[in-house]
Amino acid sequence: MSPFEQLQALVAQDMDAVNTLIRTRMASKHAPRIPEITAHLVEAGGKRLRPLLTLAAANMCGYQGTHHQLLAATVEFIHTATLLHDDVVDESDKRRGRPTANLLWDNKSSVLVGDYLFSRSFQLMVETGNMKALGILANASAVIAEGEVLQLSTAQDLSTSEETYLQVVRGKTAALFSAACEVGAVIADAPETHANALYAYGDALGVAFQIVDDLLDFGGATATLGKNVGDDFRERKLTLPIILAVAKADASERDFWKRTIEKGDQRTDDLAHALRLMDSHGTLAETRQKALAWAEKAQQALDPLPESALKSALVGVAGFVVSRVV
Amino acid sequence: MSPFEQLQALVAQDMDAVNTLIRTRMASKHAPRIPEITAHLVEAGGKRLRPLLTLAAANMCGYQGTHHQLLAATVEFIHTATLLHDDVVDESDKRRGRPTANLLWDNKSSVLVGDYLFSRSFQLMVETGNMKALGILANASAVIAEGEVLQLSTAQDLSTSEETYLQVVRGKTAALFSAACEVGAVIADAPETHANALYAYGDALGVAFQIVDDLLDFGGATATLGKNVGDDFRERKLTLPIILAVAKADASERDFWKRTIEKGDQRTDDLAHALRLMDSHGTLAETRQKALAWAEKAQQALDPLPESALKSALVGVAGFVVSRVV
Repeated sequence: MSPFEQLQALVAQDMDAVNTLIRTRMASKHAPRIPEITAHLVEAGGKRLRPLLTLAAANMCGYQGTHHQLLAATVEFIHTATLLHDDVVDESDKRRGRPTANLLWDNKSSVLVGDYLFSRSFQLMVETGNMKALGILANASAVIAEGEVLQLSTAQDLSTSEETYLQVVRGKTAALFSAACEVGAVIADAPETHANALYAYGDALGVAFQIVDDLLDFGGATATLGKNVGDDFRERKLTLPIILAVAKADASERDFWKRTIEKGDQRTDDLAHALRLMDSHGTLAETRQKALAWAEKAQQALDPLPESALKSALVGVAGFVVSRVV
Repeated sequence: MSPFEQLQALVAQDMDAVNTLIRTRMASKHAPRIPEITAHLVEAGGKRLRPLLTLAAANMCGYQGTHHQLLAATVEFIHTATLLHDDVVDESDKRRGRPTANLLWDNKSSVLVGDYLFSRSFQLMVETGNMKALGILANASAVIAEGEVLQLSTAQDLSTSEETYLQVVRGKTAALFSAACEVGAVIADAPETHANALYAYGDALGVAFQIVDDLLDFGGATATLGKNVGDDFRERKLTLPIILAVAKADASERDFWKRTIEKGDQRTDDLAHALRLMDSHGTLAETRQKALAWAEKAQQALDPLPESALKSALVGVAGFVVSRVV
């Protein structure tokens, strides 16, 4: 079993309840198009990593009730809402190997159904009656939106620093990971050191996860031109691999990045050339090293928590997330 | 002074505090584009009717604290977020006489900044610590999104009934009016009869408000071809004037509606012809009568509340809203 499957097994019963919640709450009496769209996305079989984190955190902290299930469903709804809006913003046509909702229906439906899921997520968390958890998830939602807007304004901007990249990643990805973990501790009324440890774990895990995602968009640490490679390059997104390559570029390489990313003038062999440049500077290997360091940071963050099967599973998941790139 | 100005005068001090809250909370440290866009919309000078309702309701119910200001700002943020998303959905290029955000920036920014404002609204309400108010506003948000999605699927559908139209209007408009009123009563810990009365007032006022809006889109109860007339006709939206006209259509008129609304085949004089058909059936006058009836319903809903200057102002506002159409 992979560490991820171990985590799934440890909270399997809770996760069944969460899946039932997700299915029942994504419906709408009044607008039949809503469940069509949400079902398309929810049934597509995402990993449900974020709700798993909430369940694991709550159980690790000795929680005995069922409100962690509501929070786990909340977290997945917020995630699904952001996916719907992301696909509109990125003009994507594929998500999890299937056509996106904005392609099958239209952008209008994706915007509004995202809003619906977002509202439903707030209804779910209100049911817990836990104001602290509500505050954490409301803050996370605001930070996610800020991260996405910041990403918009860094696109095509070659002067984007690693620091700004991290700020975007902390917003668009890590904020929900850390909140997912923290609310699990909060609903269990865990001591603050444990809640902080789980927050720090989620934050570092989220950063590692996103760096790996951005690396896989260039085919992984060993540059290979395969399908689904180079989307970020084509969309002129300043992700870590490009930022590190630009930092080491000589004058002619800089001209290449200016033309392809800043001006958006991209030709047939440009992606292959970009990968060659990255290879020559060891950029992709360096990116992988940074992901590994964040995964290690996530693992160390859990130190204050007592040993348990769940803790081991979370430690394993942090390693597993970066093992996707070799 | 108009009843609306009377209402403004009665809560002027509270409203100053709300405007300060709106200005400070729409900012973003990390994403400078956010305040640019929100300022464009917020400074455009909407009427701020919804937050006025919250302040009035709380003060009528004897509230002494400042949390009603947080809720009033929440309500305005939810409203502004839906406007941003509506303009994307409707592909609008004008709002309050100025170019829309999606035209000045892009749809991406409008979607994400809407999400940001929506998240900020939840942060504001969490600050009140009032779980009941949170539940009411979370529900209202979900009902708004449902109403908008329902509206999408009724567009171009000539079989849309007056009942379905009302369901759309209750969602997209009345839900926030009624919630704005109800949370004012709830934060004041008012007796349930008063909270229910204010809810019913907001609901009926919202329906009246939207019917008037839809009537003005055809130039008001006396059909006149002016500028800004006929947007809903061109977008093939089934609003009350068209629904009532279709209900009375003979065979050749039905063909006209089928061609223009269902098939979207619209020619130069079609809007003028649509207005002539509505005139001949008294459709616009009938629509106005229905708006008047809803306004009266709003006024009567306030009966359980003791007399006060604020109550008189709210009664006056209901009449004022429909006085826009003659």
